[in-house]
Amino acid sequence: MLTNTRRTRIEWCDCDPAGIIFYPRYFEMFDTSTTMLIERALGMKKIEYLKAYGFAGHPVVETRARFRIPTRYGDEVEIDTALIECGRSSFKLQHRLTKAGALAAEAAETRVWAIRRADDPQRLQSQPIPPAVLARFNRDSP
Amino acid sequence: MLTNTRRTRIEWCDCDPAGIIFYPRYFEMFDTSTTMLIERALGMKKIEYLKAYGFAGHPVVETRARFRIPTRYGDEVEIDTALIECGRSSFKLQHRLTKAGALAAEAAETRVWAIRRADDPQRLQSQPIPPAVLARFNRDSP
Amino acid sequence: MLTNTRRTRIEWCDCDPAGIIFYPRYFEMFDTSTTMLIERALGMKKIEYLKAYGFAGHPVVETRARFRIPTRYGDEVEIDTALIECGRSSFKLQHRLTKAGALAAEAAETRVWAIRRADDPQRLQSQPIPPAVLARFNRDSP
Amino acid sequence: MLTNTRRTRIEWCDCDPAGIIFYPRYFEMFDTSTTMLIERALGMKKIEYLKAYGFAGHPVVETRARFRIPTRYGDEVEIDTALIECGRSSFKLQHRLTKAGALAAEAAETRVWAIRRADDPQRLQSQPIPPAVLARFNRDSP
Repeated sequence: MLTNTRRTRIEWCDCDPAGIIFYPRYFEMFDTSTTMLIERALGMKKIEYLKAYGFAGHPVVETRARFRIPTRYGDEVEIDTALIECGRSSFKLQHRLTKAGALAAEAAETRVWAIRRADDPQRLQSQPIPPAVLARFNRDSP
Repeated sequence: MLTNTRRTRIEWCDCDPAGIIFYPRYFEMFDTSTTMLIERALGMKKIEYLKAYGFAGHPVVETRARFRIPTRYGDEVEIDTALIECGRSSFKLQHRLTKAGALAAEAAETRVWAIRRADDPQRLQSQPIPPAVLARFNRDSP
Repeated sequence: MLTNTRRTRIEWCDCDPAGIIFYPRYFEMFDTSTTMLIERALGMKKIEYLKAYGFAGHPVVETRARFRIPTRYGDEVEIDTALIECGRSSFKLQHRLTKAGALAAEAAETRVWAIRRADDPQRLQSQPIPPAVLARFNRDSP
Repeated sequence: MLTNTRRTRIEWCDCDPAGIIFYPRYFEMFDTSTTMLIERALGMKKIEYLKAYGFAGHPVVETRARFRIPTRYGDEVEIDTALIECGRSSFKLQHRLTKAGALAAEAAETRVWAIRRADDPQRLQSQPIPPAVLARFNRDSP
């Protein structure tokens, strides 16, 4: 199972008038964590792997999250991300965000492999994940 | 059941390099929709109802969402929000975002009534929803 | 001179732990205001005018802003935008954001007409503004 | 003169449909850079220094910026921040963001020291910077 861990900090710009993180910011962080896991799996930056495999992105089609302990600006957090399932044209990930070892937030997400439609490049459609990518997605973490 | 409908537009600033909405922006929109529903139920703006009822906010503790059809900048969308359940110190809402009548995204969320802790005003704790608020939350839409 | 006026509301998601707008959100609002002015001038949505004129966008290369009165969540504001100058491949706009008639924020920005580079479509380069666009930019507001 | 340098990465969530950074995100980054410079100068996290000096924040009242080279997701950048002037109740900073040594963006900003008004804690007013803070702001970088 592919995993990736990264550390980041909750900033003033992530927080709302209640003084705690505004929860949509967690999804921005999880999106970056997913990118970093895939970059590590494929050995390329996202801008390169989109080009190398000729696709437009891996948009989220479903997500669920629980926010257990509020985080605040200045909090150092750790995000553990795991690729937990891989289908033909979709894959699932899990994120666990901890603060000083305590679970603050967790999320699961399903993403699809999406290409631009030939008839209208501004529209997307899902597509089977290329075998070379599947092979790397099904390996253990490097 | 309290409901609220509002119309908004997906903007350039909501979209990512794939040309579609970046999904955390949906949660920003749903957060605003929740505020608007509560403002309507209580007959006050959020800045006023936080003061009137002496609390810090109604943070989301759990959410799940499905994104069915991508939206793009310039899309006019409609968001229907409903308060579907109300407990002692938490309540649940549902959002349905449609584009030209087609369901593009939907979400459910659980929120808690939160006050600042007496011992540390920078921290929050959940609190029973005031009876006056409960009475309005359990009414039908005005 | 082309002008556009729109009304919007400062939301919870725009505000920071000080309870006032987090100033980068103003630039998001001004960006949307610029889009709306150009959409009105060209009679098309942005997604359509990018395609119709074959360009990638009109990125900001310079901006300056003054924030005079803080705005807070729930504030109804009005944004007046004017196209004040139009060069060969760049143009300048001004934004004035008022709250109950009082000037709360103002900004000036310079944008360039940008196309994707033939040798690398992920890179941009500035380009002369098409004559048909110039003609509309130099008209008075419709 | 106080200075601070930090490295960060432009992410997918910072970029727009043109594939480059959406410029308001630069201001979010500069805001974090300012926080980090002040945290270093005062030897405390922002959440602590707001409490220690009893103020609500240091909002930006004026800014100007030039964006010279677009950055894209995956770009590693460096942000150099300097406190260039310090008045009675306001102070000025400069930010220079470089990519592989080339200047990509630069900004100057003026901030005020702001406290909550006694008559209405939801409103802010500027206030002289405390002498202990001034003493640290006028030192050289640690």
